[in-house]
Amino acid sequence: MTNTQPVIIRAAMLAIGDELLSGRTKDKNIGHMADRLYEAGIDLTEVRIVADDQPSIVKAVKELSQNYDYLFTSGGIGPTHDDITADAVSAAFDLPCMNDEKAMTLLAAHYKARDTEFTPSRQRMARMPQGAQHIDNPVSVAPGFIIGNVYVMAGVPSVFQAMVENILPTLRTGSRYHSRTIFCPFGEGVIGIPLREVQDAHPDTVIGSYPKFEEGKFSTELVVRARDEEKLDAAAAAIEKMLTDIQQ
Amino acid sequence: MTNTQPVIIRAAMLAIGDELLSGRTKDKNIGHMADRLYEAGIDLTEVRIVADDQPSIVKAVKELSQNYDYLFTSGGIGPTHDDITADAVSAAFDLPCMNDEKAMTLLAAHYKARDTEFTPSRQRMARMPQGAQHIDNPVSVAPGFIIGNVYVMAGVPSVFQAMVENILPTLRTGSRYHSRTIFCPFGEGVIGIPLREVQDAHPDTVIGSYPKFEEGKFSTELVVRARDEEKLDAAAAAIEKMLTDIQQ
Repeated sequence: MTNTQPVIIRAAMLAIGDELLSGRTKDKNIGHMADRLYEAGIDLTEVRIVADDQPSIVKAVKELSQNYDYLFTSGGIGPTHDDITADAVSAAFDLPCMNDEKAMTLLAAHYKARDTEFTPSRQRMARMPQGAQHIDNPVSVAPGFIIGNVYVMAGVPSVFQAMVENILPTLRTGSRYHSRTIFCPFGEGVIGIPLREVQDAHPDTVIGSYPKFEEGKFSTELVVRARDEEKLDAAAAAIEKMLTDIQQ
Repeated sequence: MTNTQPVIIRAAMLAIGDELLSGRTKDKNIGHMADRLYEAGIDLTEVRIVADDQPSIVKAVKELSQNYDYLFTSGGIGPTHDDITADAVSAAFDLPCMNDEKAMTLLAAHYKARDTEFTPSRQRMARMPQGAQHIDNPVSVAPGFIIGNVYVMAGVPSVFQAMVENILPTLRTGSRYHSRTIFCPFGEGVIGIPLREVQDAHPDTVIGSYPKFEEGKFSTELVVRARDEEKLDAAAAAIEKMLTDIQQ
Protein backbone atom coordinates (compact mmCIF):
# COMPACT_ATOMS: atom_id res chain seq x y z
CA MET A 1 0.00 0.00 0.00
CA THR A 2 2.60 2.50 1.15
CA ASN A 3 4.42 2.77 -2.15
CA THR A 4 1.50 2.77 -4.54
CA GLN A 5 -0.30 5.94 -5.49
CA PRO A 6 -3.83 6.07 -4.11
CA VAL A 7 -6.64 6.03 -6.65
CA ILE A 8 -8.80 9.10 -6.15
CA ILE A 9 -12.33 9.30 -7.53
CA ARG A 10 -14.07 12.63 -6.96
CA ALA A 11 -17.80 13.17 -7.03
CA ALA A 12 -20.29 16.00 -6.68
CA MET A 13 -23.92 16.01 -5.70
CA LEU A 14 -26.69 18.35 -6.83
CA ALA A 15 -29.91 18.43 -4.81
CA ILE A 16 -32.73 20.07 -6.76
CA GLY A 17 -35.87 21.63 -5.33
CA ASP A 18 -37.49 24.88 -4.19
CA GLU A 19 -38.56 23.12 -0.99
CA LEU A 20 -34.95 22.65 0.15
CA LEU A 21 -34.24 26.37 -0.21
CA SER A 22 -37.47 27.61 1.40
CA GLY A 23 -36.87 25.43 4.45
CA ARG A 24 -40.06 23.46 3.90
CA THR A 25 -38.09 20.24 3.49
CA LYS A 26 -34.91 19.47 5.37
CA ASP A 27 -32.70 17.53 3.00
CA LYS A 28 -31.92 13.96 3.99
CA ASN A 29 -30.24 12.80 0.80
CA ILE A 30 -26.95 14.71 1.01
CA GLY A 31 -25.92 13.16 4.32
CA HIS A 32 -26.92 9.71 3.12
CA MET A 33 -24.95 10.08 -0.12
CA ALA A 34 -21.95 11.36 1.86
CA ASP A 35 -22.02 8.26 4.08
CA ARG A 36 -22.38 5.77 1.25
CA LEU A 37 -19.72 7.35 -0.98
CA TYR A 38 -17.26 7.61 1.90
CA GLU A 39 -17.75 3.92 2.67
CA ALA A 40 -17.31 3.06 -1.00
CA GLY A 41 -14.07 5.00 -1.50
CA ILE A 42 -15.43 7.88 -3.59
CA ASP A 43 -14.58 11.41 -2.41
CA LEU A 44 -17.66 13.61 -2.27
CA THR A 45 -15.98 16.94 -2.95
CA GLU A 46 -18.74 19.46 -3.61
CA VAL A 47 -22.48 19.67 -3.06
CA ARG A 48 -24.89 22.22 -4.44
CA ILE A 49 -28.57 22.87 -3.88
CA VAL A 50 -30.52 24.78 -6.54
CA ALA A 51 -34.17 25.60 -7.16
CA ASP A 52 -36.57 24.10 -9.72
CA ASP A 53 -35.25 26.55 -12.27
CA GLN A 54 -33.96 25.29 -15.60
CA PRO A 55 -31.03 27.73 -16.12
CA SER A 56 -29.79 27.10 -12.56
CA ILE A 57 -29.93 23.32 -12.99
CA VAL A 58 -28.28 23.41 -16.44
CA LYS A 59 -25.42 25.59 -15.16
CA ALA A 60 -24.79 23.38 -12.12
CA VAL A 61 -24.98 20.14 -14.14
CA LYS A 62 -22.51 21.45 -16.72
CA GLU A 63 -20.01 22.73 -14.16
CA LEU A 64 -20.16 19.76 -11.81
CA SER A 65 -20.17 17.04 -14.48
CA GLN A 66 -17.13 18.66 -16.11
CA ASN A 67 -15.21 19.13 -12.84
CA TYR A 68 -15.77 15.74 -11.20
CA ASP A 69 -15.69 12.05 -12.08
CA TYR A 70 -19.32 11.63 -11.13
CA LEU A 71 -22.32 13.85 -10.51
CA PHE A 72 -25.27 12.52 -8.54
CA THR A 73 -28.54 14.45 -8.53
CA SER A 74 -31.64 14.15 -6.38
CA GLY A 75 -35.11 15.50 -7.04
CA GLY A 76 -37.28 16.79 -9.86
CA ILE A 77 -38.07 13.59 -11.77
CA GLY A 78 -41.75 13.18 -10.88
CA PRO A 79 -44.80 13.75 -13.08
CA THR A 80 -45.71 17.36 -12.24
CA HIS A 81 -44.88 20.72 -13.86
CA ASP A 82 -42.20 21.50 -11.26
CA ASP A 83 -40.28 18.32 -12.15
CA ILE A 84 -37.88 19.66 -14.74
CA THR A 85 -34.68 17.75 -14.03
CA ALA A 86 -34.94 15.52 -17.13
CA ASP A 87 -35.38 18.56 -19.38
CA ALA A 88 -32.54 20.47 -17.69
CA VAL A 89 -30.07 17.57 -17.78
CA SER A 90 -30.95 16.94 -21.45
CA ALA A 91 -30.32 20.63 -22.18
CA ALA A 92 -26.99 20.48 -20.34
CA PHE A 93 -25.91 17.64 -22.67
CA ASP A 94 -27.51 19.19 -25.79
CA LEU A 95 -29.68 16.12 -26.19
CA PRO A 96 -33.40 15.85 -26.90
CA CYS A 97 -35.54 14.98 -23.87
CA MET A 98 -37.97 12.31 -24.95
CA ASN A 99 -40.23 9.50 -23.75
CA ASP A 100 -37.90 6.56 -23.32
CA GLU A 101 -39.39 3.50 -24.98
CA LYS A 102 -38.33 1.02 -22.32
CA ALA A 103 -39.58 3.29 -19.54
CA MET A 104 -42.91 3.75 -21.32
CA THR A 105 -43.32 -0.04 -21.57
CA LEU A 106 -42.36 -0.52 -17.92
CA LEU A 107 -44.72 2.17 -16.63
CA ALA A 108 -47.59 1.13 -18.94
CA ALA A 109 -47.36 -2.44 -17.63
CA HIS A 110 -47.17 -1.21 -14.03
CA TYR A 111 -50.32 0.89 -14.28
CA LYS A 112 -52.15 -1.75 -16.30
CA ALA A 113 -51.47 -4.31 -13.55
CA ARG A 114 -53.00 -1.88 -11.07
CA ASP A 115 -55.95 -1.18 -13.35
CA THR A 116 -54.91 2.48 -13.30
CA GLU A 117 -54.84 4.84 -16.24
CA PHE A 118 -51.39 5.62 -17.67
CA THR A 119 -52.12 9.35 -17.78
CA PRO A 120 -50.08 11.94 -19.71
CA SER A 121 -48.75 13.10 -16.28
CA ARG A 122 -47.49 9.63 -15.54
CA GLN A 123 -45.98 9.39 -19.01
CA ARG A 124 -43.79 12.37 -18.07
CA MET A 125 -41.90 10.01 -15.75
CA ALA A 126 -40.60 8.17 -18.84
CA ARG A 127 -38.84 11.31 -20.09
CA MET A 128 -35.06 11.29 -20.21
CA PRO A 129 -32.25 12.42 -22.50
CA GLN A 130 -31.97 10.35 -25.67
CA GLY A 131 -29.59 7.45 -25.06
CA ALA A 132 -29.83 7.48 -21.25
CA GLN A 133 -29.57 4.25 -19.28
CA HIS A 134 -32.07 3.41 -16.55
CA ILE A 135 -31.53 3.38 -12.80
CA ASP A 136 -34.04 0.84 -11.49
CA ASN A 137 -36.58 2.00 -8.93
CA PRO A 138 -37.70 -0.94 -6.79
CA VAL A 139 -39.97 1.30 -4.69
CA SER A 140 -42.24 3.05 -7.18
CA VAL A 141 -41.13 1.80 -10.64
CA ALA A 142 -40.44 5.15 -12.40
CA PRO A 143 -36.72 4.91 -13.22
CA GLY A 144 -33.90 7.34 -12.67
CA PHE A 145 -31.33 7.60 -15.43
CA ILE A 146 -27.65 7.87 -16.29
CA ILE A 147 -26.30 10.13 -19.03
CA GLY A 148 -22.56 10.57 -19.37
CA ASN A 149 -21.22 10.77 -15.82
CA VAL A 150 -24.49 12.15 -14.39
CA TYR A 151 -26.73 9.92 -12.27
CA VAL A 152 -30.24 11.34 -11.92
CA MET A 153 -32.23 10.05 -8.97
CA ALA A 154 -35.47 10.77 -7.15
CA GLY A 155 -35.85 13.21 -4.27
CA VAL A 156 -38.10 11.07 -2.05
CA PRO A 157 -35.54 9.63 0.39
CA SER A 158 -36.75 6.00 0.28
CA VAL A 159 -36.57 6.02 -3.52
CA PHE A 160 -33.28 7.93 -3.58
CA GLN A 161 -31.71 5.44 -1.21
CA ALA A 162 -32.88 2.44 -3.22
CA MET A 163 -31.47 3.98 -6.40
CA VAL A 164 -28.14 4.70 -4.68
CA GLU A 165 -27.85 1.03 -3.70
CA ASN A 166 -28.48 0.07 -7.33
CA ILE A 167 -25.76 2.28 -8.75
CA LEU A 168 -23.03 1.87 -6.10
CA PRO A 169 -21.79 -1.54 -7.30
CA THR A 170 -21.41 -0.13 -10.83
CA LEU A 171 -19.17 2.82 -9.92
CA ARG A 172 -15.39 3.04 -10.15
CA THR A 173 -14.16 3.42 -6.60
CA GLY A 174 -10.87 4.72 -5.23
CA SER A 175 -8.64 3.96 -2.29
CA ARG A 176 -10.97 4.41 0.61
CA TYR A 177 -10.23 6.41 3.70
CA HIS A 178 -9.78 4.74 7.04
CA SER A 179 -10.61 6.89 10.01
CA ARG A 180 -10.29 7.02 13.75
CA THR A 181 -12.03 9.29 16.22
CA ILE A 182 -10.16 10.37 19.35
CA PHE A 183 -11.97 12.14 22.17
CA CYS A 184 -10.11 15.16 23.49
CA PRO A 185 -11.23 16.58 26.87
CA PHE A 186 -9.79 20.02 26.00
CA GLY A 187 -11.21 22.80 23.88
CA GLU A 188 -9.62 23.63 20.55
CA GLY A 189 -7.83 26.63 22.05
CA VAL A 190 -5.63 24.31 24.12
CA ILE A 191 -4.66 21.89 21.36
CA GLY A 192 -4.57 24.11 18.26
CA ILE A 193 -0.82 24.63 18.00
CA PRO A 194 0.40 21.11 18.94
CA LEU A 195 -2.30 19.60 16.72
CA ARG A 196 -1.05 21.59 13.74
CA GLU A 197 2.43 20.19 14.44
CA VAL A 198 1.02 16.66 14.34
CA GLN A 199 -0.80 17.46 11.09
CA ASP A 200 2.37 18.91 9.54
CA ALA A 201 4.36 15.82 10.57
CA HIS A 202 1.76 13.48 9.02
CA PRO A 203 1.01 15.03 5.63
CA ASP A 204 -0.74 11.98 4.15
CA THR A 205 -3.41 12.12 6.80
CA VAL A 206 -6.25 14.58 7.27
CA ILE A 207 -6.88 15.60 10.86
CA GLY A 208 -10.23 17.21 11.56
CA SER A 209 -11.01 18.98 14.80
CA TYR A 210 -14.66 19.27 15.82
CA PRO A 211 -15.51 21.39 18.82
CA LYS A 212 -18.35 20.52 21.11
CA PHE A 213 -19.90 22.99 23.48
CA GLU A 214 -22.10 21.31 26.04
CA GLU A 215 -23.18 22.54 29.46
CA GLY A 216 -20.86 25.52 29.21
CA LYS A 217 -17.79 23.37 28.59
CA PHE A 218 -15.73 22.85 25.45
CA SER A 219 -14.34 19.52 24.35
CA THR A 220 -13.16 18.32 20.95
CA GLU A 221 -13.51 15.30 18.74
CA LEU A 222 -10.42 14.66 16.69
CA VAL A 223 -10.92 12.62 13.54
CA VAL A 224 -7.90 11.28 11.67
CA ARG A 225 -8.38 10.02 8.14
CA ALA A 226 -5.88 8.37 5.81
CA ARG A 227 -6.02 6.08 2.82
CA ASP A 228 -3.08 4.14 4.26
CA GLU A 229 -3.72 2.37 7.58
CA GLU A 230 -0.10 2.50 8.74
CA LYS A 231 -0.03 6.25 8.31
CA LEU A 232 -3.35 6.47 10.11
CA ASP A 233 -1.93 4.48 13.04
CA ALA A 234 1.14 6.73 13.22
CA ALA A 235 -0.87 9.96 13.24
CA ALA A 236 -3.33 8.61 15.80
CA ALA A 237 -0.45 7.59 18.07
CA ALA A 238 1.05 11.07 17.75
CA ILE A 239 -2.27 12.62 18.79
CA GLU A 240 -2.58 10.30 21.81
CA LYS A 241 0.94 11.29 22.82
CA MET A 242 0.11 14.98 22.38
CA LEU A 243 -2.91 14.61 24.68
CA THR A 244 -0.87 12.78 27.31
CA ASP A 245 1.80 15.50 27.17
CA ILE A 246 -0.83 18.21 27.71
CA GLN A 247 -2.36 16.39 30.66
CA GLN A 248 1.01 15.97 32.41
CA MET B 1 -49.51 45.53 -3.23
CA THR B 2 -50.91 44.22 -6.51
CA ASN B 3 -49.55 47.02 -8.68
CA THR B 4 -46.13 47.47 -7.13
CA GLN B 5 -43.12 45.44 -8.21
CA PRO B 6 -41.94 43.04 -5.54
CA VAL B 7 -38.53 43.67 -4.04
CA ILE B 8 -36.37 40.58 -4.52
CA ILE B 9 -33.27 39.98 -2.43
CA ARG B 10 -31.30 36.86 -3.35
CA ALA B 11 -28.87 35.07 -1.10
CA ALA B 12 -26.53 32.09 -1.21
CA MET B 13 -25.10 29.96 1.55
CA LEU B 14 -21.75 28.18 1.69
CA ALA B 15 -21.26 25.45 4.30
CA ILE B 16 -17.60 24.65 4.80
CA GLY B 17 -16.14 21.46 6.23
CA ASP B 18 -14.70 18.03 5.39
CA GLU B 19 -17.02 16.50 7.97
CA LEU B 20 -20.13 17.46 5.97
CA LEU B 21 -18.79 15.72 2.86
CA SER B 22 -17.55 12.56 4.62
CA GLY B 23 -20.94 12.07 6.26
CA ARG B 24 -19.49 12.36 9.76
CA THR B 25 -21.63 15.41 10.48
CA LYS B 26 -25.12 15.87 9.11
CA ASP B 27 -25.51 19.57 8.40
CA LYS B 28 -28.11 21.40 10.47
CA ASN B 29 -27.29 24.96 9.47
CA ILE B 30 -28.59 24.98 5.89
CA GLY B 31 -32.15 24.08 6.85
CA HIS B 32 -32.10 26.61 9.68
CA MET B 33 -30.82 29.38 7.41
CA ALA B 34 -33.44 28.46 4.80
CA ASP B 35 -36.21 28.80 7.39
CA ARG B 36 -35.01 32.12 8.79
CA LEU B 37 -34.36 33.74 5.40
CA TYR B 38 -37.71 32.60 4.04
CA GLU B 39 -39.48 34.14 7.03
CA ALA B 40 -37.47 37.35 6.61
CA GLY B 41 -38.22 37.81 2.91
CA ILE B 42 -34.81 36.92 1.50
CA ASP B 43 -34.71 34.30 -1.27
CA LEU B 44 -32.13 31.62 -0.57
CA THR B 45 -31.30 30.72 -4.16
CA GLU B 46 -28.21 28.53 -4.04
CA VAL B 47 -26.33 26.50 -1.44
CA ARG B 48 -22.93 24.90 -1.75
CA ILE B 49 -20.92 22.64 0.52
CA VAL B 50 -17.14 22.50 0.07
CA ALA B 51 -14.23 20.95 1.97
CA ASP B 52 -11.65 22.65 4.20
CA ASP B 53 -9.63 23.41 1.09
CA GLN B 54 -8.54 26.96 0.38
CA PRO B 55 -8.90 27.01 -3.45
CA SER B 56 -12.39 25.47 -3.19
CA ILE B 57 -13.52 28.03 -0.61
CA VAL B 58 -12.02 30.97 -2.51
CA LYS B 59 -13.72 29.93 -5.76
CA ALA B 60 -17.10 29.46 -4.10
CA VAL B 61 -16.88 32.75 -2.16
CA LYS B 62 -15.98 34.69 -5.31
CA GLU B 63 -18.72 33.18 -7.44
CA LEU B 64 -21.48 33.33 -4.85
CA SER B 65 -20.69 36.82 -3.52
CA GLN B 66 -20.66 38.14 -7.08
CA ASN B 67 -23.88 36.41 -8.13
CA TYR B 68 -26.07 37.15 -5.10
CA ASP B 69 -26.99 40.05 -2.83
CA TYR B 70 -25.72 38.17 0.22
CA LEU B 71 -23.52 35.19 0.93
CA PHE B 72 -23.72 33.49 4.32
CA THR B 73 -21.05 30.98 5.31
CA SER B 74 -20.88 28.44 8.13
CA GLY B 75 -17.84 26.68 9.53
CA GLY B 76 -14.08 26.92 9.65
CA ILE B 77 -13.56 29.87 12.01
CA GLY B 78 -12.21 28.05 15.05
CA PRO B 79 -8.65 27.94 16.40
CA THR B 80 -7.26 24.79 14.75
CA HIS B 81 -5.26 24.17 11.57
CA ASP B 82 -8.33 23.02 9.64
CA ASP B 83 -10.11 26.34 10.27
CA ILE B 84 -9.13 28.24 7.16
CA THR B 85 -12.27 30.22 6.33
CA ALA B 86 -10.82 33.60 7.42
CA ASP B 87 -7.75 33.08 5.21
CA ALA B 88 -9.82 31.91 2.26
CA VAL B 89 -12.37 34.74 2.47
CA SER B 90 -9.52 37.27 2.80
CA ALA B 91 -7.89 35.78 -0.30
CA ALA B 92 -11.19 35.95 -2.19
CA PHE B 93 -11.33 39.70 -1.49
CA ASP B 94 -7.57 40.25 -2.02
CA LEU B 95 -7.25 41.51 1.54
CA PRO B 96 -4.67 40.64 4.20
CA CYS B 97 -5.92 38.27 6.90
CA MET B 98 -4.81 39.66 10.24
CA ASN B 99 -5.47 39.65 13.96
CA ASP B 100 -8.33 42.10 14.41
CA GLU B 101 -7.52 44.50 17.24
CA LYS B 102 -11.03 44.63 18.68
CA ALA B 103 -11.35 40.85 18.55
CA MET B 104 -7.96 40.44 20.26
CA THR B 105 -9.08 42.75 23.09
CA LEU B 106 -12.40 40.95 23.43
CA LEU B 107 -10.85 37.48 23.51
CA ALA B 108 -7.97 38.52 25.80
CA ALA B 109 -10.47 39.90 28.34
CA HIS B 110 -12.63 36.79 28.05
CA TYR B 111 -9.76 34.40 28.79
CA LYS B 112 -8.33 36.65 31.50
CA ALA B 113 -11.71 36.62 33.30
CA ARG B 114 -11.61 32.82 33.20
CA ASP B 115 -8.00 32.74 34.36
CA THR B 116 -7.17 30.91 31.16
CA GLU B 117 -4.18 31.47 28.93
CA PHE B 118 -4.87 33.37 25.69
CA THR B 119 -2.86 30.88 23.65
CA PRO B 120 -1.64 31.41 20.07
CA SER B 121 -4.35 28.92 19.03
CA ARG B 122 -7.02 31.06 20.62
CA GLN B 123 -5.53 34.16 19.04
CA ARG B 124 -6.27 32.57 15.65
CA MET B 125 -9.95 33.22 16.36
CA ALA B 126 -9.28 36.98 16.09
CA ARG B 127 -8.16 36.63 12.47
CA MET B 128 -10.27 38.24 9.79
CA PRO B 129 -9.83 40.22 6.59
CA GLN B 130 -8.59 43.78 7.18
CA GLY B 131 -11.58 46.10 7.60
CA ALA B 132 -14.12 43.38 8.48
CA GLN B 133 -16.97 44.11 10.89
CA HIS B 134 -17.78 41.76 13.75
CA ILE B 135 -20.74 39.46 14.14
CA ASP B 136 -21.23 39.10 17.88
CA ASN B 137 -21.10 35.64 19.39
CA PRO B 138 -23.12 35.53 22.61
CA VAL B 139 -22.39 31.81 23.08
CA SER B 140 -18.62 31.52 23.02
CA VAL B 141 -17.31 35.08 22.40
CA ALA B 142 -15.13 34.51 19.30
CA PRO B 143 -16.82 36.72 16.68
CA GLY B 144 -17.87 35.99 13.13
CA PHE B 145 -17.31 38.74 10.60
CA ILE B 146 -18.75 40.63 7.65
CA ILE B 147 -16.69 41.67 4.65
CA GLY B 148 -18.43 43.13 1.62
CA ASN B 149 -21.65 41.14 1.24
CA VAL B 150 -20.21 38.01 2.87
CA TYR B 151 -21.29 37.02 6.39
CA VAL B 152 -18.92 34.50 7.96
CA MET B 153 -20.36 32.47 10.84
CA ALA B 154 -19.46 29.49 13.00
CA GLY B 155 -20.29 25.88 12.16
CA VAL B 156 -21.39 24.79 15.64
CA PRO B 157 -25.20 25.02 15.29
CA SER B 158 -25.87 26.86 18.58
CA VAL B 159 -23.28 29.51 17.71
CA PHE B 160 -24.39 29.69 14.07
CA GLN B 161 -27.99 30.23 15.12
CA ALA B 162 -27.10 32.98 17.59
CA MET B 163 -25.05 34.76 14.93
CA VAL B 164 -27.92 34.50 12.42
CA GLU B 165 -30.25 36.18 14.91
CA ASN B 166 -27.71 38.99 15.28
CA ILE B 167 -27.41 39.71 11.59
CA LEU B 168 -31.02 39.24 10.46
CA PRO B 169 -32.28 42.67 11.67
CA THR B 170 -29.44 44.36 9.74
CA LEU B 171 -30.20 42.82 6.33
CA ARG B 172 -32.15 44.35 3.48
CA THR B 173 -35.22 42.20 3.05
CA GLY B 174 -37.56 41.80 0.11
CA SER B 175 -41.24 41.17 -0.37
CA ARG B 176 -41.77 37.99 1.53
CA TYR B 177 -43.56 34.95 0.23
CA HIS B 178 -46.84 33.87 1.72
CA SER B 179 -47.58 30.20 1.40
CA ARG B 180 -50.38 27.71 1.81
CA THR B 181 -50.20 23.94 1.96
CA ILE B 182 -53.04 21.90 0.53
CA PHE B 183 -53.28 18.17 1.14
CA CYS B 184 -54.09 16.18 -1.96
CA PRO B 185 -55.27 12.58 -1.49
CA PHE B 186 -54.11 11.62 -5.00
CA GLY B 187 -50.69 10.79 -6.32
CA GLU B 188 -48.93 13.19 -8.65
CA GLY B 189 -49.81 11.05 -11.67
CA VAL B 190 -53.49 11.96 -11.24
CA ILE B 191 -53.08 15.70 -10.82
CA GLY B 192 -50.05 16.50 -12.98
CA ILE B 193 -51.85 17.87 -16.05
CA PRO B 194 -54.64 19.87 -14.33
CA LEU B 195 -52.08 21.21 -11.82
CA ARG B 196 -49.91 22.53 -14.65
CA GLU B 197 -53.02 24.31 -16.02
CA VAL B 198 -53.52 25.99 -12.62
CA GLN B 199 -49.85 26.96 -12.52
CA ASP B 200 -50.01 28.41 -16.04
CA ALA B 201 -53.14 30.42 -15.13
CA HIS B 202 -51.45 31.86 -12.01
CA PRO B 203 -47.99 32.88 -13.19
CA ASP B 204 -47.17 35.07 -10.18
CA THR B 205 -47.43 32.08 -7.86
CA VAL B 206 -45.12 29.11 -7.45
CA ILE B 207 -46.88 25.79 -7.00
CA GLY B 208 -44.77 22.99 -5.60
CA SER B 209 -45.91 19.39 -5.62
CA TYR B 210 -44.38 17.05 -3.04
CA PRO B 211 -45.17 13.36 -3.30
CA LYS B 212 -45.50 11.17 -0.26
CA PHE B 213 -45.27 7.42 -0.39
CA GLU B 214 -46.49 5.81 2.80
CA GLU B 215 -47.79 2.32 3.37
CA GLY B 216 -47.78 1.59 -0.34
CA LYS B 217 -49.98 4.57 -1.17
CA PHE B 218 -49.14 7.87 -2.87
CA SER B 219 -50.51 11.22 -1.81
CA THR B 220 -49.27 14.73 -2.46
CA GLU B 221 -48.71 17.95 -0.59
CA LEU B 222 -49.30 20.99 -2.72
CA VAL B 223 -47.60 24.18 -1.59
CA VAL B 224 -48.59 27.48 -3.18
CA ARG B 225 -46.33 30.47 -2.66
CA ALA B 226 -46.79 34.07 -3.77
CA ARG B 227 -45.52 37.47 -2.68
CA ASP B 228 -49.05 38.85 -3.16
CA GLU B 229 -51.71 37.40 -0.87
CA GLU B 230 -54.60 38.00 -3.28
CA LYS B 231 -52.82 36.03 -5.95
CA LEU B 232 -52.09 33.32 -3.43
CA ASP B 233 -55.77 33.11 -2.52
CA ALA B 234 -56.79 32.87 -6.15
CA ALA B 235 -54.32 30.07 -6.94
CA ALA B 236 -55.23 28.15 -3.78
CA ALA B 237 -58.93 28.40 -4.68
CA ALA B 238 -58.18 27.08 -8.16
CA ILE B 239 -56.34 24.10 -6.69
CA GLU B 240 -59.22 23.34 -4.31
CA LYS B 241 -61.61 23.46 -7.25
CA MET B 242 -59.33 21.18 -9.26
CA LEU B 243 -59.34 18.61 -6.44
CA THR B 244 -63.15 18.77 -6.12
CA ASP B 245 -63.51 18.28 -9.88
CA ILE B 246 -61.25 15.21 -9.78
CA GLN B 247 -63.19 13.70 -6.89
CA GLN B 248 -66.53 14.09 -8.62
